[in-house]
Amino acid sequence: MKTYQIEENTLRSFTERIFLKIGCSESDAIQAADVLIASDLRGIDSHGVARLSGYIRLWEKKRINVSPKLSIIHETLSTATVNGDSALGLISAPFAMRIAISKAKECGTGWVAVKNSNHFGIAAYHAMKALEEDMIGIAMTNASPLVAPTHTTERLLGTNPMCYAFPARSSWPIIVDMATAAAANGKLEIAQRLNEDIPEGWVQTKDGRTTNDPHGLKSGGSLLPLGSDKEHGSHKGYGLGAVVDILTAVLSGANYGPWVPPFVAFLDPLPDLPGQGIGHFFGAMRVDAFRPAEDFKANIDRWIQRFKSAKPIDESQPVIIPGEPEFKTELVRKKEGIPLTEMVVEDLKELARHLQTTHPF
Amino acid sequence: MKTYQIEENTLRSFTERIFLKIGCSESDAIQAADVLIASDLRGIDSHGVARLSGYIRLWEKKRINVSPKLSIIHETLSTATVNGDSALGLISAPFAMRIAISKAKECGTGWVAVKNSNHFGIAAYHAMKALEEDMIGIAMTNASPLVAPTHTTERLLGTNPMCYAFPARSSWPIIVDMATAAAANGKLEIAQRLNEDIPEGWVQTKDGRTTNDPHGLKSGGSLLPLGSDKEHGSHKGYGLGAVVDILTAVLSGANYGPWVPPFVAFLDPLPDLPGQGIGHFFGAMRVDAFRPAEDFKANIDRWIQRFKSAKPIDESQPVIIPGEPEFKTELVRKKEGIPLTEMVVEDLKELARHLQTTHPF
Repeated sequence: MKTYQIEENTLRSFTERIFLKIGCSESDAIQAADVLIASDLRGIDSHGVARLSGYIRLWEKKRINVSPKLSIIHETLSTATVNGDSALGLISAPFAMRIAISKAKECGTGWVAVKNSNHFGIAAYHAMKALEEDMIGIAMTNASPLVAPTHTTERLLGTNPMCYAFPARSSWPIIVDMATAAAANGKLEIAQRLNEDIPEGWVQTKDGRTTNDPHGLKSGGSLLPLGSDKEHGSHKGYGLGAVVDILTAVLSGANYGPWVPPFVAFLDPLPDLPGQGIGHFFGAMRVDAFRPAEDFKANIDRWIQRFKSAKPIDESQPVIIPGEPEFKTELVRKKEGIPLTEMVVEDLKELARHLQTTHPF
Repeated sequence: MKTYQIEENTLRSFTERIFLKIGCSESDAIQAADVLIASDLRGIDSHGVARLSGYIRLWEKKRINVSPKLSIIHETLSTATVNGDSALGLISAPFAMRIAISKAKECGTGWVAVKNSNHFGIAAYHAMKALEEDMIGIAMTNASPLVAPTHTTERLLGTNPMCYAFPARSSWPIIVDMATAAAANGKLEIAQRLNEDIPEGWVQTKDGRTTNDPHGLKSGGSLLPLGSDKEHGSHKGYGLGAVVDILTAVLSGANYGPWVPPFVAFLDPLPDLPGQGIGHFFGAMRVDAFRPAEDFKANIDRWIQRFKSAKPIDESQPVIIPGEPEFKTELVRKKEGIPLTEMVVEDLKELARHLQTTHPF
């Protein structure tokens, strides 16, 4: 498969221009592009500019408001609930995370639930904002229903990711950013493009049998929760997906379960919705609200050293610290540029033509 | 296997007497017994009175202090760090959860990290304390290292459970209480007693191969993280175990990773410990710090109804709401008594003889 290599700032300017074209303010365009480019830099290719045209299609369906009035509709010293006013999640999520951080400065921790929002990109972008302040960052979102709880074939949960970011002293921070499904959609898409079998335990058919077919989801099947089957703890993956669904949506007043509006613009939201838009949940905890930040960070360094030095089963595969591959990828891509597949490049070219602007490809 | 059926309050009085015998105050004995009996009532047989003699052996090794001075060593409006003074976790955890709830009353949420503690029983007991106040409860603990991160055979993490408790209006609350390993030790113990094969993906040998041997852990193997292998997301289970380890221990100043002191008294803690005792982490979030509690609880009811009504793959196995089996078990056991295996009864009889007190068996 042909790939293009594009310099970070070239891709960034293009992305900003697209958001300006649909009517975003300059600061919103810069913010939204920053989230997508961070994803491409970190190697989460499924969540970067590959999704740009998806956001634009939602805007064309009038499901995204490019002039949102973000507001706090309820708050206490350590909490807030935000109405995202149908904004891009790429805009409402940074807004909410800033509130969480500001509340943590005041009283140790800050917790913000967001309703009436849309897809927010990678969770890690938002959680990692806390690191700059020596805080632990937490970010979660619910998402289009694709995952079936244990014992059913009905798609009742999204891949509902959760992210925890912990600052280190002299090492990379630890970033646990994970979908609560056995395999996220991005992995399936790769197998689909290559038309390769997928492992059992990722997808079940519409009859509830596990399948190797990479197109099993499109034929009416569903993703399986982390754990894959009951014997291996799929009820735990289902439970984690439920935790994310409740914290992001039941707590904020967003839609949950099967009512989460689909990310793809060709599917309409269900009738009789219990809430507004999709939901997010953010947390920021000042490390020094528990112990001196230097002590914490020194111990995180020791934690990392100990885990990195664990004897590998296969010498070619050392133990990986959560977040390590993404940091390494970012170092490379900042220098060498971001690789894009031909399919993504064609999609972006078409988007530029559609919005009557230039493109760098 | 012969089982005994014993009335809740008879087992409770006996358990209190044992804690009194080792020098606990009356209120501490009542509290510690309450945690263990709650576990037996909920059907988590591995964490109830089956562990009583384990706690006593730790006390005999002078690793548990029955006259602890629990203290807050650091705090902000929404946070506290507690020094457990080597108390039973059955005592220090309720102390810390009360602080979290009290802080949530003041500023919306409360978060408490505990160091220098010991095994705290089931996480659900502590998280569920928040429900009485219309709060969301969170409880986590680290534990004796038995789990190997992806790519190594070294036991670097405990089964590190996390629990989230959400209040409902007219239904049971939703309780997600899960070990971050593919299978908790309790499940292994059952297979060991029956000498039955275990599924692949629970345990690996000391060479890093998955095994069906229920005794694989005792022969130098390790538990696998939730996800079982890399292809099925074991790096996610490892990541979750890491989150619990860091929030409970690196944040509080307890021991983490391979340095967590073993629960079994015949194993001594490692030298050069980075912290004190084991660590816990608790959270309480007032629902009405985000939206009116009645709205939240009505939507939790709708969530439960929707998930319960999902079409099952097999009519005999409906979708289960997290926490549902434990609530049903508790209803039965409150009425019919708690079943104990002969092995547990013999262990408790021996414990009574050893501490020169009577027993009800």
